[in-house]
Amino acid sequence: MSENDPKSQNRMESDSMGSIPVPAEHYWGAQTARSLIYFAIGQDRMPIPIIRAFGILKKACAQANRDLGLLPAEKAGLIIRAADEVIAGNFDNEFPLRIWQTGSGTQTNMNANEVISNRAIELSGGEMGSKKPIHPNDDVNKSQSSNDTFPTAMHIASAKEIKDRLLPSLDFLKNALDAKSREFSDIVKIGRTHLMDAVPLTLGQEFSGYVAQLDMARRYIESTLPGLYELAIGGTAVGTGLNAHPRFAELVASHIARETNHPFVSAPNKFAALASHDAIVMASGALRTLATSLMKIANDIRWLASGPRCGLGELSLPENEPGSSIMPGKVNPTQCEAMTMVCVQVIGNDTAIGVAGSQGNFELNVFKPVMIHNLLGSVNLLSDAMRSFTTHMVEGIVPNTERISQLVNESLMLVTAPFSSHWLRQSCKDCSRGAQGAHDPQGGRSQAWLCVGRGL
Amino acid sequence: MSENDPKSQNRMESDSMGSIPVPAEHYWGAQTARSLIYFAIGQDRMPIPIIRAFGILKKACAQANRDLGLLPAEKAGLIIRAADEVIAGNFDNEFPLRIWQTGSGTQTNMNANEVISNRAIELSGGEMGSKKPIHPNDDVNKSQSSNDTFPTAMHIASAKEIKDRLLPSLDFLKNALDAKSREFSDIVKIGRTHLMDAVPLTLGQEFSGYVAQLDMARRYIESTLPGLYELAIGGTAVGTGLNAHPRFAELVASHIARETNHPFVSAPNKFAALASHDAIVMASGALRTLATSLMKIANDIRWLASGPRCGLGELSLPENEPGSSIMPGKVNPTQCEAMTMVCVQVIGNDTAIGVAGSQGNFELNVFKPVMIHNLLGSVNLLSDAMRSFTTHMVEGIVPNTERISQLVNESLMLVTAPFSSHWLRQSCKDCSRGAQGAHDPQGGRSQAWLCVGRGL
Amino acid sequence: MSENDPKSQNRMESDSMGSIPVPAEHYWGAQTARSLIYFAIGQDRMPIPIIRAFGILKKACAQANRDLGLLPAEKAGLIIRAADEVIAGNFDNEFPLRIWQTGSGTQTNMNANEVISNRAIELSGGEMGSKKPIHPNDDVNKSQSSNDTFPTAMHIASAKEIKDRLLPSLDFLKNALDAKSREFSDIVKIGRTHLMDAVPLTLGQEFSGYVAQLDMARRYIESTLPGLYELAIGGTAVGTGLNAHPRFAELVASHIARETNHPFVSAPNKFAALASHDAIVMASGALRTLATSLMKIANDIRWLASGPRCGLGELSLPENEPGSSIMPGKVNPTQCEAMTMVCVQVIGNDTAIGVAGSQGNFELNVFKPVMIHNLLGSVNLLSDAMRSFTTHMVEGIVPNTERISQLVNESLMLVTAPFSSHWLRQSCKDCSRGAQGAHDPQGGRSQAWLCVGRGL
Amino acid sequence: MSENDPKSQNRMESDSMGSIPVPAEHYWGAQTARSLIYFAIGQDRMPIPIIRAFGILKKACAQANRDLGLLPAEKAGLIIRAADEVIAGNFDNEFPLRIWQTGSGTQTNMNANEVISNRAIELSGGEMGSKKPIHPNDDVNKSQSSNDTFPTAMHIASAKEIKDRLLPSLDFLKNALDAKSREFSDIVKIGRTHLMDAVPLTLGQEFSGYVAQLDMARRYIESTLPGLYELAIGGTAVGTGLNAHPRFAELVASHIARETNHPFVSAPNKFAALASHDAIVMASGALRTLATSLMKIANDIRWLASGPRCGLGELSLPENEPGSSIMPGKVNPTQCEAMTMVCVQVIGNDTAIGVAGSQGNFELNVFKPVMIHNLLGSVNLLSDAMRSFTTHMVEGIVPNTERISQLVNESLMLVTAPFSSHWLRQSCKDCSRGAQGAHDPQGGRSQAWLCVGRGL
Repeated sequence: MSENDPKSQNRMESDSMGSIPVPAEHYWGAQTARSLIYFAIGQDRMPIPIIRAFGILKKACAQANRDLGLLPAEKAGLIIRAADEVIAGNFDNEFPLRIWQTGSGTQTNMNANEVISNRAIELSGGEMGSKKPIHPNDDVNKSQSSNDTFPTAMHIASAKEIKDRLLPSLDFLKNALDAKSREFSDIVKIGRTHLMDAVPLTLGQEFSGYVAQLDMARRYIESTLPGLYELAIGGTAVGTGLNAHPRFAELVASHIARETNHPFVSAPNKFAALASHDAIVMASGALRTLATSLMKIANDIRWLASGPRCGLGELSLPENEPGSSIMPGKVNPTQCEAMTMVCVQVIGNDTAIGVAGSQGNFELNVFKPVMIHNLLGSVNLLSDAMRSFTTHMVEGIVPNTERISQLVNESLMLVTAPFSSHWLRQSCKDCSRGAQGAHDPQGGRSQAWLCVGRGL
Repeated sequence: MSENDPKSQNRMESDSMGSIPVPAEHYWGAQTARSLIYFAIGQDRMPIPIIRAFGILKKACAQANRDLGLLPAEKAGLIIRAADEVIAGNFDNEFPLRIWQTGSGTQTNMNANEVISNRAIELSGGEMGSKKPIHPNDDVNKSQSSNDTFPTAMHIASAKEIKDRLLPSLDFLKNALDAKSREFSDIVKIGRTHLMDAVPLTLGQEFSGYVAQLDMARRYIESTLPGLYELAIGGTAVGTGLNAHPRFAELVASHIARETNHPFVSAPNKFAALASHDAIVMASGALRTLATSLMKIANDIRWLASGPRCGLGELSLPENEPGSSIMPGKVNPTQCEAMTMVCVQVIGNDTAIGVAGSQGNFELNVFKPVMIHNLLGSVNLLSDAMRSFTTHMVEGIVPNTERISQLVNESLMLVTAPFSSHWLRQSCKDCSRGAQGAHDPQGGRSQAWLCVGRGL
Repeated sequence: MSENDPKSQNRMESDSMGSIPVPAEHYWGAQTARSLIYFAIGQDRMPIPIIRAFGILKKACAQANRDLGLLPAEKAGLIIRAADEVIAGNFDNEFPLRIWQTGSGTQTNMNANEVISNRAIELSGGEMGSKKPIHPNDDVNKSQSSNDTFPTAMHIASAKEIKDRLLPSLDFLKNALDAKSREFSDIVKIGRTHLMDAVPLTLGQEFSGYVAQLDMARRYIESTLPGLYELAIGGTAVGTGLNAHPRFAELVASHIARETNHPFVSAPNKFAALASHDAIVMASGALRTLATSLMKIANDIRWLASGPRCGLGELSLPENEPGSSIMPGKVNPTQCEAMTMVCVQVIGNDTAIGVAGSQGNFELNVFKPVMIHNLLGSVNLLSDAMRSFTTHMVEGIVPNTERISQLVNESLMLVTAPFSSHWLRQSCKDCSRGAQGAHDPQGGRSQAWLCVGRGL
Repeated sequence: MSENDPKSQNRMESDSMGSIPVPAEHYWGAQTARSLIYFAIGQDRMPIPIIRAFGILKKACAQANRDLGLLPAEKAGLIIRAADEVIAGNFDNEFPLRIWQTGSGTQTNMNANEVISNRAIELSGGEMGSKKPIHPNDDVNKSQSSNDTFPTAMHIASAKEIKDRLLPSLDFLKNALDAKSREFSDIVKIGRTHLMDAVPLTLGQEFSGYVAQLDMARRYIESTLPGLYELAIGGTAVGTGLNAHPRFAELVASHIARETNHPFVSAPNKFAALASHDAIVMASGALRTLATSLMKIANDIRWLASGPRCGLGELSLPENEPGSSIMPGKVNPTQCEAMTMVCVQVIGNDTAIGVAGSQGNFELNVFKPVMIHNLLGSVNLLSDAMRSFTTHMVEGIVPNTERISQLVNESLMLVTAPFSSHWLRQSCKDCSRGAQGAHDPQGGRSQAWLCVGRGL
């Protein structure tokens, strides 16, 4: 590389189609360069977690090939060092390819092979593009096919992102809502069904419903992880494992499990693992379920905070930014709006994933990139949105207790009911806390056992 | 009822709005009659499994109210007898209401109360419409609200239909495909990726992928059952259990469990159980995952059977009916087409369920009927379609072994590969069965261990 | 047919597969009977408008074949008489086949051929099942294929139902909302953006937005009709018109146009007309747009009517039925709920239609029945729901003017704004009606020209 | 700004919430800075076409305010110069905000106000952040609200992108397919329905169906432009036009029309224009219809090119890149795969848009950013994918005439039909071109008029 004008310098890289120039400062090779020409579609690049997952996968494959005596230790060592740098994120910019490429993700697999081989060559003091001492296909891709590496990377990236980013973010929100539920446990408010005034409950009970929804969403998401832990690697081109050693699949899976601390295993049936992505479809269904919960929660909160004078006005939300440009004093539920938009996007992503998942043919589903683009997109948006929603909104929710009391006391239910408002201060025969309607002195509604603490 | 002209006879039924005529031969009451007037929308009636589930629920509620001393044994006995007849299907025609009614399903809950009370009155020798000795609200609906009964019926119906109809149908198909996979285990065929000729596998391996997909779909569907086993009953109007005895919820759940032999339990949080239907959303996601699998399987089979002269021609399907009207001798993959249409419908139903599930407000989600309409619709279609697909198609699949051999032998892969076709007859060093490519005498491709038996 | 026990009697019908018994009282033949056995999937029958459309189509084909000298006038006359009875609805029960059949709708085309031929035979005094003098294939289906008749029936049914049922229903609602908009033109109310109090507008202006949405939806739906007016008939099996006279396509289209009074024409490209259903996909998109409008309108109305004490309370809706079973005095926005459920269903139907529309192969799309099932389902639900919504709700909306005034006067906007509430009574310099904010005496906000009449 | 270390320099910017540091090298102000903190959700930035549309809009507003005497010519001139630079793309990097922000897009409106005011200040020699002489709210946002500017920018961007990028790309593909259709007009091939061998047609006829689909999609897309040409500007906060001059709306629309050469007009009802986005929903429906067509076309082509030995093999596609990593000689239909993935994404985007469009409340729909993100995303992907598909694939399609002839001659249809293959060379009585089946000497099938030229 020249010092004075690196941008003008190219080196020649080659593949089975011939030679093609590549910018000298980049590590990718001929197939990546071709894909940049032939797939100039949109701006969506392969997600970073997929790139890192390829680092993990290529490292594990080098380890397994070495273990099996198929790759000399020195070569394996170079590949592992380069792959470690991919895992560390040093080469994120070396993966410029779009989602909208070969449906098997072949070009991204080759991108990984090329970057790792060129970096390994560089580490060994060789000449980039020479394919010596590390060949992108013969060494980095040894015992592999795009058809088994790409779905493996899909599962590694999905499981890791869900486990390491989404679930902690979900817990962060859940805990914040749970704290609010406890904080609000004595605030009796009007219940609303069909948007109409109904019988009372506590604000804490209302929030406990949100916590319960997130608990359930969490269980659902976790129930999809075992499917994601099953890895296609070892199936090679069509699922039979042609060109791979019989022990390769399980060896690689165990190396990946060790590297990631997640219980990855070899998929029991490689034909299904290449030709379908039901684990991705199901995981998306679980994310969609979370999105429907979050939509309900965010909608409830913005409605409860509506007003301040002409809405429900039961909650006050933090003022994070000026309101509208025409009415600067107006505080809008902006975090709720960002969240509901995210939920709608997750619903759309889920449709794309479901349709794509249904379109496999024979030994391969060639909608892999669009599926992982949408799945990781949903994971990313939900993770960030839950964190933002918690920090910038949920933690700062303040109940307008005066307004809440006024509404519940004015409600038709209490006005017309045979029992009067004093019952709110009666004690419950079951738990000695404040009860609702249970012990009305006039004896009407004697079957009403609403205890403030019930349902929690 | 007059003998000579029953149709012209009406009796008067009443509710809090006043009196309204009801055809004398029918058991429903005033609120059902009103709903027929106010909701003349479409033809979709409440699904039969929901009606039967209401029978189960109303019976269990009468038992629990009796156990708690809230309902005299005689009254409870009458309700139970009438409810048993609803369970038996004797009153399916007495539930004429549409899906497109109150979003809480209130009118169907009242329909159940009215039919059961009138039938109980009839059993006791009373006058229908008199509400004596069994009152639809005070007795049949005792300790309940539409807001907790309808979601309870949704869960009973869904869990039962999935467990009792869908899973057996899925197993029926899975076993048939598994039998074919074993039957075809020695038929070596060309693999296809990107629709292009790839390396060989066996037809049995290809079918084993379908079995694996159904296995996974089964596990996914089962993983959603625990959510469906949680029942809202006991939450009454807003989730607090107002008007219900504190032990009512668990008592009813245990009666339902006993009646159905399914492990139904009381939902841990009733606020979530009324205001959201995440268990339905998640179950729909699992059904959608099954649909994507079935779409892939049905598409594969119809493509493999395409021809007879100008397609792939690897399989022959049973001739069940004449082909097209213009070309009667043409055998079309009609079972596959019915199946793929069902799959597309399930995908559409799933979208409706997801959107509806996101639209709850405060203490109630008022999209209950549309959600259960679509969920039970998907269960019903998938159950029937898998059974039809198996009986009328899968069981009769015949491989065209000559064509299959010709294709694999002519394929570019073998022609251009350094190993010749004789390897198909070599024995595998691991399992002594026929291997592919492993032991090529010229030594090229020595890493190719494709054993015919691998991957199974 | 025997008089004493018609149900026990069968007659034998035959097709290219052989003989099969058919209940003597029914008009269908062998292929319908086979389909009932092989496609026992779900309960969804082919929609009535499709059956009637087949009547129209078969009549027009007989006329065209007669005009071209391909069918003797006597035979044509018999077919036309029988088809007229199908059009009149006399034979709706003779079309028992399911949606979930051959994806080309072949079996329903044969069902039509069989019923019409048997009825024509009966009219001529012949023996049903004898195929003499009218043969289902050679005469009724003459110059046709399922591949061109079914999509033709899809277009006839869709265009007719949209034009004759949906648009009048849409106008009925639009006119009712427009009347309310005019009735409410002087009611100044608080505006709400982000659910928060904003600046005022009139209730009439708010309703004018609904009218504008429906106006736009109407234009969009109408813009899809020309696509539906294009008919596939004449394309026969693959679009080339094999076995049909070159003038057949246009002759049939003109007969259909005359019969229906809709401007049906022959599709300019028959290959696209058989292999894709973009006109159906686009029409569904327009129905979905209408559904999103109706969802917004129904949601607004139920929110504005929320309360009565603890919600917004600006509108009162008619009490059509008792409220909840536990709170009978509660009036719920049930028509809004039925409408929003319908809208969600239309969104789901639209997903199914879009996916199905993308799945054609070569000369045929074999997702025809599922597409028309969903399209006509959406038309039917929207038509009925708009009519119910109008009659049972919109026409009875009453504004709570006191509450509306109180809210707008208390709103923070007016309290904090430099102009006081008296501006509501000022006159607008442009139109001499009451203006808002324009002529504030203090001179602040002098650019505010809000006239009560603006925006209408 | 310091020369040596610009990155470390900040300037203080302020809004109604107080002061906040902003990187000195950037033009944005306080509200943008706040949004970067509070909405760190995902990576999706506001699309470039929206940024440019804001340039167009802000310029037109300055012109209209100047015309109405509300803004001095000098101030207007500065704003116009700065806005012109935004239009030219000079400030694309100054719009760092995410999609996932306030649902009205308020923060992006403020971002535009801030960048334009700071650039105008810079042009005037003033100090950035001083708001002098150009104030972001009082001057750049004069007579406007986020609630009317953002939807106006949505429509400007959508209409421009559809008209200037999508339709030319569609025409590019359509013309290429049309050229192929003419080129292939004499190649007789087997037709396939239900994937099974049917009667023949020409390859040109098959391709003519694709052209017809694109023609129809084009008309559908164009039919949605009038809705997009209607602009919300002038409605201000709630649609009444408060704070805007009565002539402002139409003046701005005419300036925008002049700037863009598109027939933009003022929306007839501003309440609907703010509270709903039906024009976006409908436009998405049209894009989805295009996607379903493209999916069919791309699928057909990859199936027709399947093989080379074991598939249909009727077409050869260009070899643009090496095949799979394990089988480098394999040519895969990668452009088709990229296209079908794009189509699936457009279907998912459409679901998100439809759901979002249904969720408006009262005077505002707060799902604006997610709607335009998906719409412009679909436009962008479809435009790029159609261009790539054409250049890198369609233009290079070569028919395998030998294979095509072999298949049609071997097909069961001809073998079993009473007419022999010589009819392919007979001349048509109608047009004197080659006919199929018409004039079979044996006289059978005398109604078969398939002319090679028919249907085109």
